Amino acid sequence: MLNFESDYTTGCCPEILDRLIATNLESQSGYGFDEYCKEAEIKIRAVCNAPDAQVEFIAGGTQTNQVVIASMLQRHQGVVAARTGHISCHEAGAIEYTGHKVFELPQVLGKIRSNDLLDLVRRFYADANHDHMVFPGMVYISHPTEYGTLYSLSELTSISEVCHEYGMPLFLDGARLGYGLMSNRTDVTIQDIARLCDVFYIGGTKVGALCGEAVVFTHGNRPEHFLTMKKQNGALLAKGRLLGIQFDTLFTDNLYFRIAKHAIDMAERLKTILSDAGFPFLLDSPTNQQFVILDNATMDRLSKDVKFGFWETVDEDHTAVRFATSWSTSAKELDKLQTLLK
Amino acid sequence: MLNFESDYTTGCCPEILDRLIATNLESQSGYGFDEYCKEAEIKIRAVCNAPDAQVEFIAGGTQTNQVVIASMLQRHQGVVAARTGHISCHEAGAIEYTGHKVFELPQVLGKIRSNDLLDLVRRFYADANHDHMVFPGMVYISHPTEYGTLYSLSELTSISEVCHEYGMPLFLDGARLGYGLMSNRTDVTIQDIARLCDVFYIGGTKVGALCGEAVVFTHGNRPEHFLTMKKQNGALLAKGRLLGIQFDTLFTDNLYFRIAKHAIDMAERLKTILSDAGFPFLLDSPTNQQFVILDNATMDRLSKDVKFGFWETVDEDHTAVRFATSWSTSAKELDKLQTLLK
Amino acid sequence: MLNFESDYTTGCCPEILDRLIATNLESQSGYGFDEYCKEAEIKIRAVCNAPDAQVEFIAGGTQTNQVVIASMLQRHQGVVAARTGHISCHEAGAIEYTGHKVFELPQVLGKIRSNDLLDLVRRFYADANHDHMVFPGMVYISHPTEYGTLYSLSELTSISEVCHEYGMPLFLDGARLGYGLMSNRTDVTIQDIARLCDVFYIGGTKVGALCGEAVVFTHGNRPEHFLTMKKQNGALLAKGRLLGIQFDTLFTDNLYFRIAKHAIDMAERLKTILSDAGFPFLLDSPTNQQFVILDNATMDRLSKDVKFGFWETVDEDHTAVRFATSWSTSAKELDKLQTLLK
Amino acid sequence: MLNFESDYTTGCCPEILDRLIATNLESQSGYGFDEYCKEAEIKIRAVCNAPDAQVEFIAGGTQTNQVVIASMLQRHQGVVAARTGHISCHEAGAIEYTGHKVFELPQVLGKIRSNDLLDLVRRFYADANHDHMVFPGMVYISHPTEYGTLYSLSELTSISEVCHEYGMPLFLDGARLGYGLMSNRTDVTIQDIARLCDVFYIGGTKVGALCGEAVVFTHGNRPEHFLTMKKQNGALLAKGRLLGIQFDTLFTDNLYFRIAKHAIDMAERLKTILSDAGFPFLLDSPTNQQFVILDNATMDRLSKDVKFGFWETVDEDHTAVRFATSWSTSAKELDKLQTLLK
Repeated sequence: MLNFESDYTTGCCPEILDRLIATNLESQSGYGFDEYCKEAEIKIRAVCNAPDAQVEFIAGGTQTNQVVIASMLQRHQGVVAARTGHISCHEAGAIEYTGHKVFELPQVLGKIRSNDLLDLVRRFYADANHDHMVFPGMVYISHPTEYGTLYSLSELTSISEVCHEYGMPLFLDGARLGYGLMSNRTDVTIQDIARLCDVFYIGGTKVGALCGEAVVFTHGNRPEHFLTMKKQNGALLAKGRLLGIQFDTLFTDNLYFRIAKHAIDMAERLKTILSDAGFPFLLDSPTNQQFVILDNATMDRLSKDVKFGFWETVDEDHTAVRFATSWSTSAKELDKLQTLLK
Repeated sequence: MLNFESDYTTGCCPEILDRLIATNLESQSGYGFDEYCKEAEIKIRAVCNAPDAQVEFIAGGTQTNQVVIASMLQRHQGVVAARTGHISCHEAGAIEYTGHKVFELPQVLGKIRSNDLLDLVRRFYADANHDHMVFPGMVYISHPTEYGTLYSLSELTSISEVCHEYGMPLFLDGARLGYGLMSNRTDVTIQDIARLCDVFYIGGTKVGALCGEAVVFTHGNRPEHFLTMKKQNGALLAKGRLLGIQFDTLFTDNLYFRIAKHAIDMAERLKTILSDAGFPFLLDSPTNQQFVILDNATMDRLSKDVKFGFWETVDEDHTAVRFATSWSTSAKELDKLQTLLK
Repeated sequence: MLNFESDYTTGCCPEILDRLIATNLESQSGYGFDEYCKEAEIKIRAVCNAPDAQVEFIAGGTQTNQVVIASMLQRHQGVVAARTGHISCHEAGAIEYTGHKVFELPQVLGKIRSNDLLDLVRRFYADANHDHMVFPGMVYISHPTEYGTLYSLSELTSISEVCHEYGMPLFLDGARLGYGLMSNRTDVTIQDIARLCDVFYIGGTKVGALCGEAVVFTHGNRPEHFLTMKKQNGALLAKGRLLGIQFDTLFTDNLYFRIAKHAIDMAERLKTILSDAGFPFLLDSPTNQQFVILDNATMDRLSKDVKFGFWETVDEDHTAVRFATSWSTSAKELDKLQTLLK
Repeated sequence: MLNFESDYTTGCCPEILDRLIATNLESQSGYGFDEYCKEAEIKIRAVCNAPDAQVEFIAGGTQTNQVVIASMLQRHQGVVAARTGHISCHEAGAIEYTGHKVFELPQVLGKIRSNDLLDLVRRFYADANHDHMVFPGMVYISHPTEYGTLYSLSELTSISEVCHEYGMPLFLDGARLGYGLMSNRTDVTIQDIARLCDVFYIGGTKVGALCGEAVVFTHGNRPEHFLTMKKQNGALLAKGRLLGIQFDTLFTDNLYFRIAKHAIDMAERLKTILSDAGFPFLLDSPTNQQFVILDNATMDRLSKDVKFGFWETVDEDHTAVRFATSWSTSAKELDKLQTLLK
């Protein structure tokens, strides 16, 4: 069975396993005070060109969003996100569970527009009764978005400007950041992100790690008592080394970028295969997630040999499905898919 | 440098690494729907002799306590624990963060007494105004306790009886369960625990895993919508396989029990070494944590070569420190310690 | 200065003051166990034709919404409301503060449509991943809405049907219920509301009381331990008599309906005055809130003698403002307004 | 039936009713922006001799404790209180519901001791792992306490010193403050309280008002966005005038102090009556609550004609009960009681 269901169906890149073996018997301090977390922080700071950045490691994505947002917002504030943002609809209310509202902005290809953001904030402050309302206190974007799309440098810059004009930290969810950075069609670098955002995370779980996300507070702005708040959210791992070792490995010899590049190359070939087979796309994604429209007969036939994700119903006879590539996608698998599509 | 600071300073038992390598390229469903989670559940159910048990895997201990307690309590209820219980004092308020009170009972050697529990509950229901108070809705005990001590079967039975008489589920925190079960001085089996508790967890992080705890709802009593609540707490790992594989390995060929037994054997020898060297103990611990009283001169000298945990000041000249053994403690390390103590 | 700013600028109807005086020296039990709360409950039950109804009194509107919603939702659930619903935008995030998401539906004249609700729920249950999402667990509507508009019996029936088909209690916020019931253009009675909703509240603060709202659980469905949860929300008044006496008075000799009718009569005359003076309305409101569009010159001139509420900017030269009538609005005040408009 | 059950069984002092009548038809702004709230603030500031004080009015006591504590604590902090403090045991977990732990200190006659507080804080900061624990962030005391007892000026000063040395605001719950200030046996004035505490509240509900407590932030230290947080807790009353008018009246011509003095005089006479009748007291209370020990036969006989509060079982044959006086207790009622006791 071929599996293109998601980018987290296989284990991790072998370099990580090697490193886990090599370091297994070393004694290391717990709770993120091990050498590897420190090393990984130094490397990430360097790659971001952000000498004052502080890096924290957290086991999963929902948890990261929850811990970061709940520790940066004040009680009277909420977070602004696209209606299709992960925190708006696919985190089981993890943000609201911490007591904060998620303001939903309209989305275009999964992205928010700086104008809509500006409009929301201006209307808020223009309202004489805004003390009776939740204050927009932070902005959340995902890059790549849940639709695989990317902000351009100019879009990101505009959003960042609105955020900073109104004192709202900008938070970028980079669960799939590697795929965004290695896309053939992006003008955004990790240094740009570190410069324009106040906090972002470098996704590990979906980019070659067993688990783990690296949160970057870009300019020495990690909230005070972050460790205590992390623990309060149940997000402080005793064996923090597990996260440190993985990120130290991913940021050694550009591994993170190399495996993401591989996934992008595979996605580009996948796109060609699907396109050559005559299938239209729901939208034009420049990253590792591809949303293709299949007629239902093909979909049913294909699903006997291939796993892919249901995305949405297009019409009575057609369905949009998601194919995702990852560090472990092989050219062989794509060959097999091509054969099956013939 | 010798390290007896805790039982989570090294990586994981090699069998787990081997298994991670062997399964690395397999495609598995996410969120705990992989084959390994299923396999591990079957094995745990069998070892517990609890055919209706449901097993859930969660990455860390604080998180497990938070998810289990917050999903089992109703809004008007709190959880009863020993004053020295982990949730009372060392989880940064993770339980209160979910909106629930922790009732603190007196402790004797880290344990609660069924009579104190009964007294608390009786006084609560006898109070005509108890609708103005938090209802005691659940009982939390740790086994081994934070002091390394163990409940006897008779103590556990009494507590369980009070719990069930008053409709309070009994939750046992087994962060170090293996060491409790393999102690030379216990009459409590995992089957007893499964029979007497409503929910308990089998600690992985501190007993040979990289991370992970296995929560056992002993009689088909897992709360409805548990997955959604787990996600809401940020505790649903995308690559659930990481937890499934570890617990499947730990419960294959009794690995979990074998490594725990090894740690106990090491602890017994450690105790002899410390005792022979003339040091008294703070209390008599039958598990892998040993609390020894050092004069401060010895403590300072020793700390140049050995890491151990500060526990409490005894008097001006003496300090209680904690030595912990684990799956990775070797006879060689103990030999070295013995030499250093001479 | 004339004041049409809102329906809570004056004190309370004199009958309430008389009753407070008459009962002042009586000893009554606290926390809602006084005779007047009991009497008021009996009268409300009767007027609703709902013999199994349970009635609770709470001091204010935000508090009522918070207590009712947080006590009826389960942890994995959120509440559905119109984007313009009070709980969506004007309660400072009081619902999210209790951990629950507010799903925002599009609004038409302040109302939700049963089809939009049906669509939301169907899409939710059709989504294979809905366990990763907040469950729609309850529906909130306001009647009259924040725009003064009213649901028709047929609209209310449709919404109620969708709610009950999907097991979602229907909650009607009646902060201004009296004005809705006494409108000249409604086919909805309080008995209809009691029959179609699972819980609703009869607003006192905005309909002649000093404070207080009467929550009606229409069919014996008050959540268990409601008193404890009310207290947990800080919403249990020691001198509950203050609420009981007011509602007992309001529901004696139809006082509640009579004062609401008076406000409606005044609103109708107000409408005529404004209309005769040539001003268009933002929308056609059948209740005590009238939204009129003034040119800014008139607005500025008028505001020297009359208080009204800013509603929204229409264009560069025009503004929509709100005029509200209440139990205390007098014909004389309207005469004065008419003179001022000439 | 005589009623000494509590100090909130009757309505309010007649001066308040008169004032409500006199002001009833005035138009006033909502949400605490009325003239009376402003007037009351000025008067309270003056009586406290605290020119920078900010005063906020809230409807009830639990709500006040919840709003004040939750708005002053940071997320990683909890509040310290006596084990018998209202927030520890009689608020249905209202503090924990906002996410914060209540640290319980031992009590002596309902009071905490500065040494116990100092000890708790020192042990906290001495603990190398205190980042894994809740930080003590605020101290809560009640004055009078739940046992009717009072802090001396020297005790209050010591507690205040510990609080300020460790950066913890001191919060005094004055639900019955008037009775404390007017006690014949106190050396603490309201100016002392304003000087030594960071925030305290002047209880209205239990001292002659229909409802309402006046929170005093003593030195311009009201948390930013307090109104928004108050609303988020459901504690912002639309007709804030109801609270303003009551406190403006209570602080005109020393009414608050006069009615409290009356209650103290009645309590002193009550004490003599009970003492003369040969009954011992559970403790020596200098305020309006008297805790007397009755033999059960007397208790049963008396309860046919007199209401009092059950406090605690003393032994098989004796029970401690509470008698409370208030603004409305009359000499006649005491005469009747005396007769009944003969």
